[in-house]
Amino acid sequence: MTSPEQVCQEVLRRITPGPEERERVLSVAEELMERLRAVLAEEGVEGEVRLEGSLAKDTWLSGEADVDIFVRFSPDVPKDFFRRRFLQLAKRATEGYQQVERYAEHPYLECYADGIRINVVPCYAVRPGEWRSATDRTPYHTDYVLSRLDEHLKGEVRLLKKFMKGIGAYGAEIRVGGFSGYLCELLAIHYGGFLEALKAASRWRKGIVIDPAGHYSGREDEARELFRHHLIVVDPVDPLRNAAGAVRLDKMATFVLAAKEFLARPSEAFFFPPEPDSTGLKELLATRRTALLAIHVRFSGLVPDVLWGQLYRTLSALRGLLKNEGFKVLRSSAWSDEEANCVLLLELETARLPPVVKKVGPPVWLEEHVERFLNKNMASPELVCGPFIEGDRLMVLVKRRWPDAAELLREKLRDGGKDVGVAPLLADHVRKGFRILVGTDVLGLCEELSGFKRFLTEFLVGRPPWLVREG
Amino acid sequence: MTSPEQVCQEVLRRITPGPEERERVLSVAEELMERLRAVLAEEGVEGEVRLEGSLAKDTWLSGEADVDIFVRFSPDVPKDFFRRRFLQLAKRATEGYQQVERYAEHPYLECYADGIRINVVPCYAVRPGEWRSATDRTPYHTDYVLSRLDEHLKGEVRLLKKFMKGIGAYGAEIRVGGFSGYLCELLAIHYGGFLEALKAASRWRKGIVIDPAGHYSGREDEARELFRHHLIVVDPVDPLRNAAGAVRLDKMATFVLAAKEFLARPSEAFFFPPEPDSTGLKELLATRRTALLAIHVRFSGLVPDVLWGQLYRTLSALRGLLKNEGFKVLRSSAWSDEEANCVLLLELETARLPPVVKKVGPPVWLEEHVERFLNKNMASPELVCGPFIEGDRLMVLVKRRWPDAAELLREKLRDGGKDVGVAPLLADHVRKGFRILVGTDVLGLCEELSGFKRFLTEFLVGRPPWLVREG
Repeated sequence: MTSPEQVCQEVLRRITPGPEERERVLSVAEELMERLRAVLAEEGVEGEVRLEGSLAKDTWLSGEADVDIFVRFSPDVPKDFFRRRFLQLAKRATEGYQQVERYAEHPYLECYADGIRINVVPCYAVRPGEWRSATDRTPYHTDYVLSRLDEHLKGEVRLLKKFMKGIGAYGAEIRVGGFSGYLCELLAIHYGGFLEALKAASRWRKGIVIDPAGHYSGREDEARELFRHHLIVVDPVDPLRNAAGAVRLDKMATFVLAAKEFLARPSEAFFFPPEPDSTGLKELLATRRTALLAIHVRFSGLVPDVLWGQLYRTLSALRGLLKNEGFKVLRSSAWSDEEANCVLLLELETARLPPVVKKVGPPVWLEEHVERFLNKNMASPELVCGPFIEGDRLMVLVKRRWPDAAELLREKLRDGGKDVGVAPLLADHVRKGFRILVGTDVLGLCEELSGFKRFLTEFLVGRPPWLVREG
Repeated sequence: MTSPEQVCQEVLRRITPGPEERERVLSVAEELMERLRAVLAEEGVEGEVRLEGSLAKDTWLSGEADVDIFVRFSPDVPKDFFRRRFLQLAKRATEGYQQVERYAEHPYLECYADGIRINVVPCYAVRPGEWRSATDRTPYHTDYVLSRLDEHLKGEVRLLKKFMKGIGAYGAEIRVGGFSGYLCELLAIHYGGFLEALKAASRWRKGIVIDPAGHYSGREDEARELFRHHLIVVDPVDPLRNAAGAVRLDKMATFVLAAKEFLARPSEAFFFPPEPDSTGLKELLATRRTALLAIHVRFSGLVPDVLWGQLYRTLSALRGLLKNEGFKVLRSSAWSDEEANCVLLLELETARLPPVVKKVGPPVWLEEHVERFLNKNMASPELVCGPFIEGDRLMVLVKRRWPDAAELLREKLRDGGKDVGVAPLLADHVRKGFRILVGTDVLGLCEELSGFKRFLTEFLVGRPPWLVREG
């Protein structure tokens, strides 16, 4: 068996940018910074132009360069300046590039030069703790990480980032709910390397506190009480921020399991997961003997973080709706091209439930409830059997209201489904139209929606490609 | 509408024994007591022969006379005397009558004269509280009740007993788990009448304490703590005995609901429930759309209280078994002729479950559990999907072990079923053979087993005949 160290060495070779790529990306960054400084000077606007992010820290992955250019303004500058004037300035500086306005807490400009994505982001030059906007910490993060990285550790950060990507746990965005680049840097620095971080993570438990700067030394319970999260990594530049606040429990668990698995069975599959084999997809679905339901909705005007928040909330609400009506939801997931199409996928034990169900009534002691229950059910054409007494309660058998899951969903989503918990911004699009596909019909979406086939295959397989047992 | 009082008057007319019946029964009792006294004298055995039970208290129902003759012995007499010598004496005294030996705490003789059942029972002449056998209290019960009954109250007791019979809540035997005759007497006396008892009962709650002799005056919580039962009626002749200890929660609830219903909608149906209409039984079963399963077992040598204890324990165990495997048991019941046949009846939402089921694994943090779960499930031919992570736990979809309820039961009962909780004395008979009937096949038992058809009809209707709502 190849050792973990050997796998790391080989991976590192593939993910470390070479001199040529480095040169190309850095020159794009420098040119743009120059142009930004010139525009600011011309307009008489004061602001410090800085390179941030993985490029500044030299922790970026070959082939995945992102140029993050920040302009740091005095705290006197009103926020409204960010929203209007700054975007104009940034656009002038990036004229000729493909430009997209993006919105996080405040707008920033995304543009593309030579196939490289460049973000031009405003922030305030404030002292730590006096944050005026969410991006104000970034320069401090850059400085902190740079002050602690040597050449070796930069490679370790790259390994950890690529590992997180490979296991689907990279990124703090809502879609992923995973580990940000900065968080990977903190972990590699704190534990002193990639394998060291995996060894430590394989012993993590829910509620662990990692505190690289020792803000809470000897007072870890305080941090636990303050952040109330399953994974707490205290931000060295801000004791009041959990740098792992975006990490969902399942992504933390995925990392922990993957860490143990890699240490026991090292392989490049953790970093470069093979594309799932979709050839047997139709057969897989036809012989599955569970009930697959897909809800396809078209939408527009939702940025990814908002979209995915809506999708996850909706998925959770629909699981609850189905469960309440007696359906067993085995699994669920959401897919989107993040532009115009999204699909909610639900796998049920069965989409058709038995036609008769037991209804639990009140204890006989509660006179008014009893009266209402008897009057309602004894007159009902839905009554199958009873009322009878079990323990101290009245019961009846009645016809099941919603024996068919697809019918239930179709009916409840007709008006958008806000009543049953469809998230409001998505509900607006659901109201305009949706499709429910059942069983092998779901395959039709693979033709229509680019990328859906891979998602569906991965969903049906369930097992992550790095999780293997021989014989 | 007829008033409650009018209904009571009419019922009382039907259930009060007339002079002729009284004469006939009492003369049987007196003749037998004479013969018993003579036999005891001949044998030189000292013992006081007394008439007990409803006949002694004049609270028996017309057409349902039971003659309870007790022989009270000195506490010096060994218990073994009860078991051997006493039975011989009683048999001599009742020579020429049909005789059956019965066993409660100790043996007694049951015989039949002129169609009247006669019990000849030994007990000890002890002071209250110094009880040596379970029957020693009986003479005290008789004395207590007689000292408190006048002619009017005797009728009220009769009404309450007949009401309990009509709603299926009469009798402390295991089969019923209801109100004994003595308990009915206590309630009628305590509340001062039949309608008064119903009015009080319609306000009962779980945990009510009724203490006719005031043994726990102002210390009801002590009684509640001591007896820990949903219905506590402190025995006036024994502060340490709950005279309602045998009343199951569902029988208490039945009485409470029936009491309310009778007061609101008085009718003779509470006392004389109409026989259920079995004409549509086949149709009823065929269109039911639930799954009915009957387990028919032949047995011998189990007295009713033991038999019913075994049946109820077994029924509860089988409900648990089915539930554990994912089946929804809507209702269940047991039937027996108390001689050779018993049937356990289970009504399920469906007898066939979907073929795939989700199996919840350990949290990823528990290394050894994780290892075992992965090794077991990833190698299994039953694996359908996964392992995948949900929250912090591993999960898989696997083929369901027992998708068919009848197959599950057949397999688990093959060796008697002790492992799955079939009560041991019944398991011995189950091992020798049983039949499982499904759906309309259950109708076959109606031909075979006398009385089963009525039971099945009542089971399928569910609603007690006295529970009605018009339009």
